[in-house]
Parts: sequence; structure tokens; C-alpha cells
Amino acid sequence: MSVARGGRLAASIDAAMEALNTSVDVDSALWRDDIEGSMAHARGLARAGVLTSEEADTLVAGLRQVAGEIERGELVWDRAKEDVHMNIEARLTAIVGPVGGKLHTARSRNDQVATDLRLFARRRTTEALAALTDLGRAIVTQAEHEIDTLMPTYTHLQRAQPSRLSHHLLAWQEMLWRDRGRLEDALARLDECPLGAGAVAGTGFSLDREATARELGFARATRNSIDATSSRDFLMELAGALAILGVHLSRIGEEIVLWSSQEFGFIALSDQFSTSSSMMPQKKNPDVAELVRGKAALLIGSVTSLLVLEKSLFFGYGRDLQEDKRPIFDAFDNAIVGVRALTGAIATATFRRDRLRAALGGGHVCATDLADYLVNQGVPFREAHHIVGAVVRAAEERGVQIGELGRDELVQAHAALGGEGVASALDPAQAVERRSVLGGPAKARVLEAISDARARWG
Amino acid sequence: MSVARGGRLAASIDAAMEALNTSVDVDSALWRDDIEGSMAHARGLARAGVLTSEEADTLVAGLRQVAGEIERGELVWDRAKEDVHMNIEARLTAIVGPVGGKLHTARSRNDQVATDLRLFARRRTTEALAALTDLGRAIVTQAEHEIDTLMPTYTHLQRAQPSRLSHHLLAWQEMLWRDRGRLEDALARLDECPLGAGAVAGTGFSLDREATARELGFARATRNSIDATSSRDFLMELAGALAILGVHLSRIGEEIVLWSSQEFGFIALSDQFSTSSSMMPQKKNPDVAELVRGKAALLIGSVTSLLVLEKSLFFGYGRDLQEDKRPIFDAFDNAIVGVRALTGAIATATFRRDRLRAALGGGHVCATDLADYLVNQGVPFREAHHIVGAVVRAAEERGVQIGELGRDELVQAHAALGGEGVASALDPAQAVERRSVLGGPAKARVLEAISDARARWG
Amino acid sequence: MSVARGGRLAASIDAAMEALNTSVDVDSALWRDDIEGSMAHARGLARAGVLTSEEADTLVAGLRQVAGEIERGELVWDRAKEDVHMNIEARLTAIVGPVGGKLHTARSRNDQVATDLRLFARRRTTEALAALTDLGRAIVTQAEHEIDTLMPTYTHLQRAQPSRLSHHLLAWQEMLWRDRGRLEDALARLDECPLGAGAVAGTGFSLDREATARELGFARATRNSIDATSSRDFLMELAGALAILGVHLSRIGEEIVLWSSQEFGFIALSDQFSTSSSMMPQKKNPDVAELVRGKAALLIGSVTSLLVLEKSLFFGYGRDLQEDKRPIFDAFDNAIVGVRALTGAIATATFRRDRLRAALGGGHVCATDLADYLVNQGVPFREAHHIVGAVVRAAEERGVQIGELGRDELVQAHAALGGEGVASALDPAQAVERRSVLGGPAKARVLEAISDARARWG
Amino acid sequence: MSVARGGRLAASIDAAMEALNTSVDVDSALWRDDIEGSMAHARGLARAGVLTSEEADTLVAGLRQVAGEIERGELVWDRAKEDVHMNIEARLTAIVGPVGGKLHTARSRNDQVATDLRLFARRRTTEALAALTDLGRAIVTQAEHEIDTLMPTYTHLQRAQPSRLSHHLLAWQEMLWRDRGRLEDALARLDECPLGAGAVAGTGFSLDREATARELGFARATRNSIDATSSRDFLMELAGALAILGVHLSRIGEEIVLWSSQEFGFIALSDQFSTSSSMMPQKKNPDVAELVRGKAALLIGSVTSLLVLEKSLFFGYGRDLQEDKRPIFDAFDNAIVGVRALTGAIATATFRRDRLRAALGGGHVCATDLADYLVNQGVPFREAHHIVGAVVRAAEERGVQIGELGRDELVQAHAALGGEGVASALDPAQAVERRSVLGGPAKARVLEAISDARARWG
Repeated sequence: MSVARGGRLAASIDAAMEALNTSVDVDSALWRDDIEGSMAHARGLARAGVLTSEEADTLVAGLRQVAGEIERGELVWDRAKEDVHMNIEARLTAIVGPVGGKLHTARSRNDQVATDLRLFARRRTTEALAALTDLGRAIVTQAEHEIDTLMPTYTHLQRAQPSRLSHHLLAWQEMLWRDRGRLEDALARLDECPLGAGAVAGTGFSLDREATARELGFARATRNSIDATSSRDFLMELAGALAILGVHLSRIGEEIVLWSSQEFGFIALSDQFSTSSSMMPQKKNPDVAELVRGKAALLIGSVTSLLVLEKSLFFGYGRDLQEDKRPIFDAFDNAIVGVRALTGAIATATFRRDRLRAALGGGHVCATDLADYLVNQGVPFREAHHIVGAVVRAAEERGVQIGELGRDELVQAHAALGGEGVASALDPAQAVERRSVLGGPAKARVLEAISDARARWG
Repeated sequence: MSVARGGRLAASIDAAMEALNTSVDVDSALWRDDIEGSMAHARGLARAGVLTSEEADTLVAGLRQVAGEIERGELVWDRAKEDVHMNIEARLTAIVGPVGGKLHTARSRNDQVATDLRLFARRRTTEALAALTDLGRAIVTQAEHEIDTLMPTYTHLQRAQPSRLSHHLLAWQEMLWRDRGRLEDALARLDECPLGAGAVAGTGFSLDREATARELGFARATRNSIDATSSRDFLMELAGALAILGVHLSRIGEEIVLWSSQEFGFIALSDQFSTSSSMMPQKKNPDVAELVRGKAALLIGSVTSLLVLEKSLFFGYGRDLQEDKRPIFDAFDNAIVGVRALTGAIATATFRRDRLRAALGGGHVCATDLADYLVNQGVPFREAHHIVGAVVRAAEERGVQIGELGRDELVQAHAALGGEGVASALDPAQAVERRSVLGGPAKARVLEAISDARARWG
Repeated sequence: MSVARGGRLAASIDAAMEALNTSVDVDSALWRDDIEGSMAHARGLARAGVLTSEEADTLVAGLRQVAGEIERGELVWDRAKEDVHMNIEARLTAIVGPVGGKLHTARSRNDQVATDLRLFARRRTTEALAALTDLGRAIVTQAEHEIDTLMPTYTHLQRAQPSRLSHHLLAWQEMLWRDRGRLEDALARLDECPLGAGAVAGTGFSLDREATARELGFARATRNSIDATSSRDFLMELAGALAILGVHLSRIGEEIVLWSSQEFGFIALSDQFSTSSSMMPQKKNPDVAELVRGKAALLIGSVTSLLVLEKSLFFGYGRDLQEDKRPIFDAFDNAIVGVRALTGAIATATFRRDRLRAALGGGHVCATDLADYLVNQGVPFREAHHIVGAVVRAAEERGVQIGELGRDELVQAHAALGGEGVASALDPAQAVERRSVLGGPAKARVLEAISDARARWG
Repeated sequence: MSVARGGRLAASIDAAMEALNTSVDVDSALWRDDIEGSMAHARGLARAGVLTSEEADTLVAGLRQVAGEIERGELVWDRAKEDVHMNIEARLTAIVGPVGGKLHTARSRNDQVATDLRLFARRRTTEALAALTDLGRAIVTQAEHEIDTLMPTYTHLQRAQPSRLSHHLLAWQEMLWRDRGRLEDALARLDECPLGAGAVAGTGFSLDREATARELGFARATRNSIDATSSRDFLMELAGALAILGVHLSRIGEEIVLWSSQEFGFIALSDQFSTSSSMMPQKKNPDVAELVRGKAALLIGSVTSLLVLEKSLFFGYGRDLQEDKRPIFDAFDNAIVGVRALTGAIATATFRRDRLRAALGGGHVCATDLADYLVNQGVPFREAHHIVGAVVRAAEERGVQIGELGRDELVQAHAALGGEGVASALDPAQAVERRSVLGGPAKARVLEAISDARARWG
């Protein structure tokens, strides 16, 4: 008979209900956190005088044994025992005898699972942060390596202005840095221990909740028993931060897919991070980048699920919250596996410098520089923009780049375009160096940015 | 070495990449469909003269053996073989020898998985429809049973007008009937076989695609090889239909939760569909209904994931599509388990007729009837509405129901309220019978509706 | 004083509440549908003997006058009157006098707005279908025009196998055809008239609901008054169908963006559908395609909002449903504007045939044909795949295409590669024609498909 | 001719394209931010020597005039001028003459709109925080007022354990406090000025970007020009924080709806925050709470849209980002209007103390206390739980509360239940006081919590 049904309900449960009700297939992933929380609770009960210290020691030792059994794959999860908590308690009681029935004193599954989830969230967020740091470093390393590789920037996927590859890679890293900040902020906000909140209204036993919180490494105990057991905004916030991270990974993924195409040809992934086709023998596909884009879709689905789940929920705990596990577990799995694979893919990729540089040869990428040159000759920008636009149009009609037009043709558009500075304006390499404004692609600026990024990611 | 890597790529794959790339943990759920599709493909290759009929027979027999092994849990899925397709092909080849290497002629994993997914979708949709039919019937049975149970309708969760429980239950059933229609429409639209579309551009072997489609029970072969391998709108549509179904289940769930409260007390779930608390011994909780609400949140997340996944995808197949499996598998699982548990919960629930009837005693539920009475005396409705509103206000101030006001007080509000019909207007039972308009709660109308519903659900 | 507050509540409303409560800024878009529904209701009241036919005529004439005023922009919407319904009724009453107060007899805003929304949905879906038809036709026209333009197919954005542009364009059209089916199915399912369902429990007046339904062009009256006033699955379904359509538009958009890049250079949008940059004078950007991708994101947000909105809603009408308007209005606006702009962009675009054809020169696009050739020489496909994979690898190492390898090198990989058919296998034009399977890119098949598509879209 | 089309493109634009392309209907909401940013940019150009200080002064004065015109509703937004930026620049140039054409030097719409959006986000977030503070205070005030009002807590909407209303209200406030933290964190993270990032690659003019950032009140200038113009995670993060806030508001709304029902009867909203029905004269509906729940659905849609919008976007700016405005504008509008209306509704609501207290009389709310009593007598908790569960079952069968069972019946269940402390265990008022653990409902703890909350919200 299920421990959880107690003496109140008839013992049997309908099969369709059991299929819906059982969660151990999913929540067994919390076992480590559950045992850690139970150990702290046992010690807390002893401190409160509810258990003797011998009883507490027996429980802690028993829990340690259960942990070992799970670690070694010896414990068979029993769906009839509903969830990870009841499975562990049942096994504990089998080991330690009746004293096992004392562990749940002054506790409910509601504060227990709220604690487990925070321990889990802390553990996985820490992993995600470590993985993110590796990715940040891999990008910075490539940025250092490619410091002299020029390429166009793009807007609307049209060539825009000259820049350097390192500058582009550092843009990736900027996004990821903010992702790190979001995860850290979420971690700080969830750093509270719910144990002692009971089912919803606290407990009548005089637990020292702050002591238990400290023992579990939390900054403090939660402040309201109803909120502690019924709120999951820490999961919504984390899933949101992971979804934004996923969106950022998908943007990097999109660029890798595009740059891997024969048309762009800017990057070559290593074979270790490539796949082939079951039908077409010539294929070398950037699946890693596509899978990462796909993971972003799942991450968006996860945060949606969590937001929807808690919407309009009456206080306190409602069983709807059982369903928070799958989305948050998936969110961490998908984000972390994506970060790690992308780290390797970037670290082992080769950038095709010739192709990147060659792309500066089309798309009139120095047209803005030509307009700026006119501004420096006193032409209002809007007028300069219009003049150069017409020059581009003329070049396009002739099928050439603006730098290939003759001096006469330029002068016809505006007298100042016969000046000496025009050649310099139209030289991509000089154009990059002219963009020495803070945040720009000039070499000195990018070196500064690399140095800052290096310091940032440690 | 992974079969899929072919001769093009170096044999090894990075560990982080493998973790991302492997899908067999998830897509092994397609094994039945994969084998069914492969058998039809083998026969198709024979018809096209690519294989001898002996070779086809060998392959089919081998596939049957693999199916048996999987059924009996003997096949160990190997993550290094990536996915369900490669695992099955590898096992097949181990059984039948080199001829196994001929099965994939004129086929790609792209048309193979597209076929598997449609077979899977058809199979699961059929299951969902059967489960839905059971739920429809269970509701109709309760509606028949409670035909004489009066209760108020609610709007804004405020008591509104008198009605009967059967009428309310039939509203549930109306929603579910449309859910059925959506699933059937989706099923008809996806009823096409992609086999023969190859990786993206068809195949050079002259397969009779319509014959293979027929063999697999499809209505026709897909019409464009690029679309066939790259589009997944059938999954988006199904997940959408399941999400709407989930929303409908959540509405029923919400009502069960509410009606199970001590305050409403309209329904008592059977113990078989109830749970207790680990801390509070008195609890009998309607978890079934809460879990169903929670499943709706997951279903909304699943359709979101699928929509996002395919957004902005370049043709043809991109590996992002690998990630379509988890959301659609989850969607079917969550919808079906929810429908089944709710069916049992409703079938075994007891409605508390006294509490339902008693609720007509408050909330001035016949106020509209009183206004209608005035309309029948020639008062324009807006004026009648205003007069009765003031009567209600007066009753509220005195803490009584409008039927408890004296004749004098009513006449003061409007002379016609002294009339004979007033008592009839204020009688809830008569009020229900007056609502004999099509779609209304009068007994005859509801009996008609029950009869229609009974015919509908078979 | 607001008509809607009646005699029950104190007249004043808090300013913050009014800001939340007022909906006329949004729902005034329903005015046409509201007046159409009210006219039918007035006639229905006359048929039921609740109004004289003179009264009904007066109301209809008054409503016609209000419609004229709105059409001409003369009616000033008053936020204090809450919504479109109350604004119109108030204006009507100002025109026709006290009889205006009779229009709302046997009706509630709940069945009124449910009717308005279905009329609106029908009207806008019809518009969307017409726009979609124009888009289908524009695509088929381009497919006809480009029947002889060869190009590679892609998977994973890597060149895959030879095909023709028409075949690719028809893949777009296949998706859109299913979108059309989804919209039509939704239209058929919502084709019911809620008028007469009242607030939630029907009405005591004996309306002929089927007659009113017919008058408004609906197929039938709704069957359950509670469901009729509280369910909005027709909006969820439509928003879902529009979101899938949006996803499909985004895929076309993604290809246009990509193909417009200097690197691909497959398409040139007309200037009429292009934009420039405020800073860079040379830019010609495919904003149309990017905006369409962006609209898909909004469409996904709209269906999400609608699903979430109705989740866990208790019956009958809850005011949450007021918020269904913005998402469904936006969904139609965004889908229709996207379809229309894309239609023009595609109709006026120029495909750069030389660039498309030239792309067949790289990526070893005939590698599958070479493997198939080996299969025809008796080599099992898996072995053939592996052999050709190694050939590709060798070619890549030398920086050439497989067709550029010498006969010796090929023979070294496999003796059969010295055969006569190899040159044919490696010719892209012949490779396309070999794919004459149903749904393949061979010219005859594509001409058939064009003819079918032409018939389809009318 | 549109300024933005420059000299590069043919002047005309297709009508369907214009309908898609024009954004001024939406983005005119940015006018204040756009003018503020332009003033700072003009001064920055002067500092950089690109403009004379007279030119800068002229531009600033002109911009001030434009602002006045917009404020007074005099400027007619022109859809042909595309967006808010071009409308303002065109009006400015009409006022100040050709020097207007110099304002856009060293700037692109890409860094301009990125700046506007951050100014907008800062402004609206500040408003949201102020509104949230008012809500926090209103809740704390009610918590103070209701300090002696006892009520049950609920889990699964079943009565659980005794508590006090203040404790429940403080749970609301705890959630909102974390919402505040999320908004503040987002604000700190977006506190960077993009001006000077140009279209994507910075500018060749030597702007002092940090000086401009300071002038606009930003903490610093952005660090990478590509990231600065192409990333919108600050919008995703804000929309995420607002969606979580919306979910929290919806939970409060759900409770108000429930508590307003005749069945619960715990709260009476003031008439100022209530609405009636157009059909049913007796209705007083809690629409405010339902609308707030509805807004949460829209907020979830908004964050979904923004996440999807930026997924898989190639760097730098893509026009998809134009579509970020509607969701973020809506998100702020919906969140702020919801917070404000709820503030008023709560501040003016009356709690029905008698009904709240009376609810302690059912549901065996002291069952846990009885089990705890047994624990104190040495019975292991699990056993105690089981014993009391059976007691509850017996009481239910007799239709009484456990406190109404005779001493004999209790003793039969367990000898210790004949003890003296049983009466105290079963007294709800004492049960509340026993829960004096940190975060529990005992009066002293709640007074502490109120005092902390009072300090928190200022």
C-alpha cells in the first residue's frame, strides 16, 4: 500500500489514475537533492529535540546507504510508490526500521520537494555557468587567433561595412556574458531554504530553520510558509534565462550553418563535429549547429510550459506543480548539452580567411565611408547619402563596384569625389581602422575588448 | 563505426557532440513504425526490380525478427548508432548479412523518418480518438443519470441563472466533440506517404510510390519530394489540436477542483481517483483534476516548441527537425493519460444533488426572469433590467433574497411586480423549464441533447 | 452612467478600473459584425412576437444609420461606454428613442459577442483565403516561368542533389495548400450561431434560433447555451492555423533573405519591395522577407495567448475572454499583410538563372547518382555509399569536384567506376531527369505538378 | 519620397509592401525617447567637431519644438515616412532647414532605435516599479488591518491547516517582491547606451560615446557595435519578468474570483471595482480579477513572441526586429494597468471575517495537530499520520468533524488520544499560535513579517 494514501483513503488506486499520478520516472532525477535535504532535516529534528541524536544518526547513515544504492544502480524505482520521495523513504525504512517513520515529522512533501527543487536548480545552474564559461573562453581564443582576419559585417544578410572576424566573435561573447548575469541573478534570488514551511502553514515543532538553511548552503530560510510551498517563480526565471541563452546559441548556430554553406564558405567544422547523410555520400553537414537551433525551440517551449503551469493557481500547493519537473529538467539538459557541443565545435573549427577577406570585394562595403568623406567636405549627411546612393546605382547598372568607377564618373556625382581622400575612403582595410570608436572594429579597440573578455571569463 | 558517417568523415565523433547528436533514447519509440515502413520499402524495392523477391523476403523476415526482439526487450539500444533507424538496420544486417545493406537503396533517413512519424501520428491519433470517445460516453452517462438535478449556472463564478447539471455536463461534451473533429481533420490531412522522396530530391530508381502508400494504408503518396522531407505541419497541427483538447480538459479539471472544495461541495471523487497528503492525515485531494490542468500547460509548451522549431527553416531537411520528437511524443502521452484518468474520475464520481440544488437558494438567480416578466408587461428590457437591479440592491441591503421581499417592496419598485406571475418568475424550477429554447436547459431540450450526444459518441 | 452597470452597482467606477475595463479601443473593430448580428436579433424578436414588426423595422433602420455614421467616421467611440456593443446601443437609442431599450431583450452581451466574433472570424478567414489563393497563384506562375531553371536542392544548407527551381517553388505551394485546408476546416467548424444562448442559460423567450442562424448565413445554431457563451476554441483553432501559415511564410521569407545575399545571389527583389539603409547608401535590403519572418513570431505569440487565456477557465463566461480580441485581431492582420506583401514580392522578383545553374558546379551534387550507379552494378547500397564517400574525400583533399577526378582514381575506388555510365551519372541535367518518380524534379513530373497546382488554386 | 529610400532604390514602393513596412502606427510611442536620444546625439556631434555648436543648438531647439508639437497632438504621423524616426527628422528639417540633414551623421536607424528602446524600457520599467510598490503597500496595509482574522490555509483547494488572513496576504507580497528584484536586475543589465554603434560596425567619426551615455543617464556605453545593434535580450528579459509578474497577478486574481463567489464569500469588492451583467440585473462580478488573469495570458504571449522573434537571427540588424515593438509595448501596458487596477481593488475590498473564521469549522483542519500530538507522545509520525487518517475516515462516515467525536472513539484509535492535550490540539486558534516557526502564521511571526514588509516597500 502506498505510504502516501495514509489511513484516510481506500487502499486501491485506479490504473489510469496511477499512470497519471506516478512521477518517479521523471522525478528520480532529484534523488541526490532529496537525500541531501533529508539528511539536513534529520539533523534539524535532532536539534529541535524531536529526535534523539542517535535516531538522527541512524537516519543519516541509512540515507547515505540509500544514496550508495542509487549511485550503483541497485535501487529499483517502484511506480506504485509514486515519487522519488516515497521511494527513498520506503527504502530507508526497510534499512533502518520504524525510526524511518520519524523522518517525515514536521515536514510535508510540499516543503520537501520545494527544497529538493532549489538544491537541484542550484546544482544545475552551477553546471550551466561552468559550461558557459568554457564557451566564452573558446570564443575569445578564436577571437585572439583571428585578430587579423578582415570580413564584412552584414545587416539584413547583405554586406554592410568592413570589419574583422574577431569583432564578430566578440559580439557572440557579449550576449553570453549577459546570459551569465541572468543565471547568477536567478541563483541569488532562489538561495532560500523552504524546509520547515510544512504543507503550507509551517509546523508546530520548533525547528531552527535558519540553521538548516545554512547547513544546506542556502543564504537564508524562506519568509512565508504559503509562498514557500506554492511558488515556483525561481523555475520560471531560470527557464526564462535558459531560453534566452538558447536563443543566443541559436543565433550562433544559424551563423555556423550559413557560414558552412558552399556559398559563404567562411567556416569549416572539424569532422568530429560533423555528420554525413545516409543517402548522399558527399555530405558533411553542420548538424551540431542545427541541433542547437532546435534545442532553442525546446527551451522556449519549456519556459512557456512553466509560465502557463503556474498561471491562475490558487494558493497553496496544487498538484499541477508536479508537472514543473519535466520542463525544468529538459531546460537544463538542453541548454547544457547545447553549450558544450557548441564549445567543441567552435574550438575545433577552422575559419577560411581567404573567403572572409574576399567577401569585402563585393557589396560596395565602403559606400558609407564615401558618404562620410563627403560629410567631411561639408556636405550634409542626408545629401551625401543620397549622392552616394546614386553612385552605387550607377555602378550596379554597369555591373561594377563603386571603387571600379572612373574618377570622371565620381566627379559627375559630386565635385568633391575627385579628391585625394577618396581612395582611402574606399579601402576596406583603412575603413576598418577608421572605426576606432569605442565598440568598433579597429584593431586596437578589438585587442582591448579581447583583453577585457579574457579577464571576464577568467 | 557509425554507419551514418560513411566514408566521407573521419570515424570519430566528439563526446559532447555525441551527447547532442544521439537521439535513440527518444526516437526508439518509433521502432514499430520504422519496421513497418521498412518492410513496405523492401517490398517496393522488389516491385521496382531493385531487389529480387528473395532478397525482399529475407529483409522482411529479418525485420520481423528484429521486431520480436524489441517487443521482448532483448535489443539493447546503442547510443553510438545514433538513432532508431541505424540501430534497427545494424541489427537487421547482423541477422541477414550483407543483403541488409541493400534495404536503404532508394531511401534516405529523411523520407524514412517522415514516414515513421506519419505512421506514428496515425497510430497515436487513433488511440487518442478512442480514449476521447470513452470520455464522451462517460460524460453522457452521468448526464443521463443526473437529468433531474437542478443547479445554478455561473458566470464570473457568480451564480447566474437556474439550470440543470446535465446541461452543464453536456457543455463539456460539446467541446470534446469539436476536439474530435480537429483530430480527424488532421488525420485526413496527414494521410500521405513520403517514402520515395529520398533525401530531398526523390530517387532515380523507379519506385511505385502509390503502391507503397497503399500497402502502408495511406490514402496517397506525397506530391513534392522537398516538401515531403522538410515539412512537419502535420505535427504542428496535431500538437495544436491536442493543446486545445488539453485546454478543454483543464477547464473540466478546474471545475472538479472547485466543486470538490468544502465550499462548493458539488462533487465527491471516488477514493480510487483521490490522493492524500504526506503531512495532513485528513486530506482527500482531487489531484487527478490538478494533474490534468498541469498536463494542459505541458501541451501548450509542446505546440509552442513545434511551431518555433520549424519557423524560418530553410528547405530541405535540417537537423533541427530531430527535435520534433520529444514535443510530439510528450503531447500524445500527456493528452491520452489525461483523457483516460479524467474518464475514470468522472465515471466514478458522485454528484451531491442536495448541495447543487441548495445553491439555487442564493444569488438571486431568478432576477433575469423577473426582468423578463416586466418585459412581458410591456416594460422595455433596459428599463426592466434597471428596475430589477434596484430591487436586488434593496434585498442585498436587507440581507435577503429578492423572493423574500414583501409584495409592497416589489410594487414600490414597479407596479407590475404586484402581479400574479411574479411567484412563477421567481421559482427556479419553473425558470429552468421556461428556458426551452434550442440549446437551453429545459428538460425536454436536454433529453434531446442527450439523445444526440449518445448517437454521436456511438 | 454606463448602461452596463444597471441598477445594481453604484454608478461610479474607479479610474484604474476603467482603464482595465474599457475595451472599445480594441473591440470597435467588431462594429460591422455587431450591427449585422443586432439586425438579425431584432428581426428574430419580431418573429417571436416580443417586438412588433414596426419596432423591429425601427431598430433595423436605426442600426443601419449607426453603421453609416461609423463608416463615415462620424461616431466618436466613448471609453466610458466600455465596449463596442454599448457604444452602438447607446447611439441607437439616441436615434430611435426608448424602443432602443428593447433590442437587448432575450440577449446578453455574452451571446452577442460570441456571435460577433464568429461573424468576424468568418469574414477575416474568407479574406485570408482569398489572399492565400493569390499567393498560391503567384508561386505557380513563377514555377511555370522557371520550368527550365536547374539548381541544387539543399539539406542542412549544404548542396545535396540536382533539381529545378520550379520543383522548389512548388514545395512552397504544397505547404500553403494545407494551410488553406486548415482554414477551411476551422471555418466549417465555427459555422454556428450562438444568438439565443443568452448570458449562459438560454432565454425564456421563444426565439427561433435556427431561423436567425440562417439569416446570418450560419449553417446551424449552437447546441448548448453554456458552451456557446464560454468556449473560444474556434479562435484557438484559427490562431493555430494562422500561426502554422505564418511559420510557412517565414520559411519562404528565410529563403528569400538567403537567396538575396551576395553569396547566394539567386534572387533579385524588385525595388518596390526593397528598402535601403539610413546610414549605408549602397544597401538594398530584403526587408519584406524579414518582416514576414517577424510576423510569424507574433503569430506564435497570438496562439499562445489564446491557449493560455482559456486554460483552466470555469464555465460560463469569464471576463478573461475580453482579452481574446487583441490576439485574434492581430493574428488576422499579421497573417494577411504578410501573405499580401509576399505575393507581390514573389510576383515581381527576378530569379538569377545563371547563379542557380552555377551552384550545381560545386558540392559534388551527383555523388548519390554515382552510388546508385554502383548499386545498378550490383553493389549493396551501404557499400556503394561508403565507396563514393571515400571518393568525395579524395576529391576534397585535392580541391576538386568528383567529376574532375581521373578515370584511374575512380577505378581505384571501385572497378565499376571505370564504366561508361559514370559520365551520365555525374551529369546534373541527366540526374534531374532520372528523378522521374512521383513527386520528383524531372521535367515531366514538374509539369504535371504545375498543372495540378494551377487547377487547385483556380 | 521617403528619406529612407535614398538614391539607391526606385522611389515608389508597392502598396502591400507599404502596409507591411510602415511602423509609425506602433512606434510613434517612442517619440519622447527618440527626441531625447537625438538631442544627445546632436550635442555629441558638436563635441566631436562634426557640427558647430550653433548647428547643434539649432537642432536641439528644433527637436524641442517637434516635441512640443507632438505633445500637443499637432504633428500628423505620416505612414509614407515609415517610422517615428523619419517622421521626426522630416518635421525637424522642415523647421530648421538643411542643417536637419546633418543630424543623422555618424548614426544609423539601427543604433538610434536600439537607444530609443533602452530609454523606453528604462522609463516604463520605472513606472512598473512604482506601480508595484503601491500594490505591495496596499497588500501590507490590508495585512495589518486583518491581523486578527483567522482562516484556513488550503492545498489542492481543500482546507488544510489553520492560519490567519494576514499570513496569506503576505504570501502575495513575497511573490511581488521577487518580481521587483527581477525588474531591477533587468534594468541594471540594460543600462548601456548603443549610440555610436552605427548600423553595425561603429562609425568613422570620433564620438565620445561614454560622454553621450552619461548625458542620457546610462551607466556606460555598449561594448560591441554588432551586438549593440542586433541584440534584444533586454526586451526578452523584461518581457519575461513582466510575464512572471503577470502570472503572480493572475494567482491573486484567481483567489479574488474564488473568494468573491457565493460559496466562499471571503471578500467583497467595492462597487467601484465591480461590474454587472447586461442581461442579469442581480450580478456583481469581479471582472477586475478576471481581466488581470486575462492580461497574464497576453503577457505570456508577448514574451513568447520576443523569444521566437530573435531565435536564429543572423547578425547584425535584421528587419524582423521591427516587430519587437508591439509585444514589449503591450507587455508594459498590460502589466501596469493590471497592477494598478488590482491595487485599487485590494485597497477598497472588504474581507468578510465571519466567513473566513467559519471556514475553520470544517475540513478537519487540526488533523495534523492531532498527529503531531501523538508524535509528542512518542508515536512515529508515519504511524500517527495513519492513525489520524483512520479517525478522519470514521468522522466522515458519521458526518462530523474529528473534534465532535467522543473521547471513547478517539481512544479506540489510540490510547494517547484520551489525553489532556487533545482539546488544545484540536483548537484552531491554538493551532495557529503553535505555528510560530519562522515563516509561520503565529501572530508574533506575522507581525514581524509585516514590519519587514513595511520596511521593504518603503
